[in-house]
Amino acid sequence: MKTKKRPASAPRRGITAPQGFRAAGIHCGIKKPGLLDLALVVSAQSGPIAGVFTNNQVVAAPVIVDRLHLRKGVGRAMLINSGNANACTGAKGLAAAQKTATSLAKQLRVPTEQIFIGSTGIIGRVLPVDRIVKGIPQLLMQLSEHGGLDAATAIMTTDLRPKSIVLQDTIGSRLITIGGMAKGSGMIHPNMATMLGYFTTDASITTHALQRALSLAANESFNCISVDGDTSTNDTVLCLANGMAQNRTITEGTAAFKRFLLLLTEACQTLALAICRDGEGVTKVVRIEVAGATTVTQARQVAQTIATSNLVKTALFGEDANWGRVMAAIGRAGVPLTPSTLTLSFGGVPMVRHGMGLGLEAERRIAKVFRQKEFTIAVGLGQGAQTAHMWTTDLSFDYVRINASYRS
Amino acid sequence: MKTKKRPASAPRRGITAPQGFRAAGIHCGIKKPGLLDLALVVSAQSGPIAGVFTNNQVVAAPVIVDRLHLRKGVGRAMLINSGNANACTGAKGLAAAQKTATSLAKQLRVPTEQIFIGSTGIIGRVLPVDRIVKGIPQLLMQLSEHGGLDAATAIMTTDLRPKSIVLQDTIGSRLITIGGMAKGSGMIHPNMATMLGYFTTDASITTHALQRALSLAANESFNCISVDGDTSTNDTVLCLANGMAQNRTITEGTAAFKRFLLLLTEACQTLALAICRDGEGVTKVVRIEVAGATTVTQARQVAQTIATSNLVKTALFGEDANWGRVMAAIGRAGVPLTPSTLTLSFGGVPMVRHGMGLGLEAERRIAKVFRQKEFTIAVGLGQGAQTAHMWTTDLSFDYVRINASYRS
Repeated sequence: MKTKKRPASAPRRGITAPQGFRAAGIHCGIKKPGLLDLALVVSAQSGPIAGVFTNNQVVAAPVIVDRLHLRKGVGRAMLINSGNANACTGAKGLAAAQKTATSLAKQLRVPTEQIFIGSTGIIGRVLPVDRIVKGIPQLLMQLSEHGGLDAATAIMTTDLRPKSIVLQDTIGSRLITIGGMAKGSGMIHPNMATMLGYFTTDASITTHALQRALSLAANESFNCISVDGDTSTNDTVLCLANGMAQNRTITEGTAAFKRFLLLLTEACQTLALAICRDGEGVTKVVRIEVAGATTVTQARQVAQTIATSNLVKTALFGEDANWGRVMAAIGRAGVPLTPSTLTLSFGGVPMVRHGMGLGLEAERRIAKVFRQKEFTIAVGLGQGAQTAHMWTTDLSFDYVRINASYRS
Repeated sequence: MKTKKRPASAPRRGITAPQGFRAAGIHCGIKKPGLLDLALVVSAQSGPIAGVFTNNQVVAAPVIVDRLHLRKGVGRAMLINSGNANACTGAKGLAAAQKTATSLAKQLRVPTEQIFIGSTGIIGRVLPVDRIVKGIPQLLMQLSEHGGLDAATAIMTTDLRPKSIVLQDTIGSRLITIGGMAKGSGMIHPNMATMLGYFTTDASITTHALQRALSLAANESFNCISVDGDTSTNDTVLCLANGMAQNRTITEGTAAFKRFLLLLTEACQTLALAICRDGEGVTKVVRIEVAGATTVTQARQVAQTIATSNLVKTALFGEDANWGRVMAAIGRAGVPLTPSTLTLSFGGVPMVRHGMGLGLEAERRIAKVFRQKEFTIAVGLGQGAQTAHMWTTDLSFDYVRINASYRS
């Protein structure tokens, strides 16, 4: 298999790297002057679109609109604002969201169902719809194949830097490009508690195959980092495909599908880890690996319980090799356990065997692992053959500072 | 109904206030010199004992021993050490725990099953059993009706102050006294991640009625504050009754049982709240009330999701009236919701009706509530008649500081 490539222009182009995509980011007046707050991504032709949304039952207006539009499975453009989440805003908020979509649809001369929208920012205030509608002509004027960076900047809230990715692979003798951009998750920058990811591709693929690939890829990436459990009202991942690479249309279950899935998964994982690493609050990114579970669900449950434990997260920040906290987290995960079959290691150094600590020498060795910026915590349940993994970050002074003082 | 009394000597006597109980606390050599680390409570005669233990599947040795001894339902003494949790210590740890119980039983000339033990401290190191066994004669020498404070001090880990309670009521024309002591929970001082509560009473009551009362009382108190989810390997609540008040033996379902239950519940709640309020890390204690749920389980799930949200907890610390975070927590609680029937208020001030924010004036009013040290967050789900409540605290710089630097 040919190695996947990241073209040199990747960071600059991002979501506009695939053929036929243009983007722009402007200041429309939601955030303070000078800050970009409105992004637009437009494809030269309509094509299949797939989406994955928040599980939160309190759902922001843009998510309601996108879910509705996704039923047709065809997209042309994605319009995203930052600074206002348009959540908990009732019928007014829904009307505002619909108006932005309708306005863009008219100017692009496409059905409203082909417009997808996203919002991130403060909850509970109705979207300043006039500012967005006013901004649309300016966005359309500025659309460019080099607008990826501006778009990635305009969707940021407390993110420190824009996050984008470009990956390429040859599928069916055609060069396929995937571009993407994302903004911080609740885990890292929970002010907004929103994680947004937008992908574009020039691959030709069926709507069904695209949805399947995006669901699987999100499961192995964005869903592995949403570890503080504070699922947002707005979380959204979308992927729009315009077929302009002119490959033979990818359908599910083929070798081409597998290659596309790998490419999209890598794109999603790269952005998910970029979300983890970005942010003043984060000093550690730790991978939790759970093996030996009876079911994948149980493996995930153990990984998630460790990943969301404040005791584990503060120990990571303090570089305190407090493996007892990991054991306690495993024990309360709600998964049937035999303590005597448990193993635990840090950065490959065994610390627990048969459920028992291996003593002070092992503690001294794992203390060194805790000083690394990124390492792996590996748990063996000793019950079955199923595995799961998850990334977590530490809980630092800055996490508290950023989140205690956001609005006031 | 006669008002329940707190005798003037309460803080000093605590667990030794009921007739026939003596206690002591000494330094046996687990902690640094000068710090009390071993507590003993002994009744003049054996009597019914009840217990409630951690749900964690990784269970410390003393909990294994206590559960076994509880099968007989009769107790004489409780021996508790701090500084070492004796968890994740396998067969060695279990043997150590048993040896301390056997040693005390011999010296008291009672069956080993009447000895109950507890440990709190670092996980993964076998209990220094010789130091404890050596300390027992000294403890027995020092046993006193005024030893309650020393005992309450000896079970502390990072607690700032000893926590004890005495409550009295007349039941069946006899004065009944309940004494109690507790140490910090995982939520507040998660270093040790252990919550211990010990109660004594001179009431005459059946083992069955005592167990029922303790289970119900713990559910309305200690189980309402274990809100960071980091259930310890060692959590234990015990209640020993010696019948020396010579009341007519209390059985379940009687008026006397109801009075006893009220008394025990108040004792448990007082200590549970004392645990919340104690600690450098805590600047806020907030009561979460959920009403209008279809089932109690669902009401609890919503209360717990809010109470454990790091975003909510940091907002409390920052006095940031960020009600959107509470809405997001409600939405992800895993309970079926109709967003349009949701209501939310802070300290009695309405902020959300029909799932929608009530605007800037309401925000200004709840901002004042957030400046209070203790207040209530009330959620209405608008679906049924079931309710639940829970206490939570804020997530502060000190929480991170204390927990990041405990061991190293």
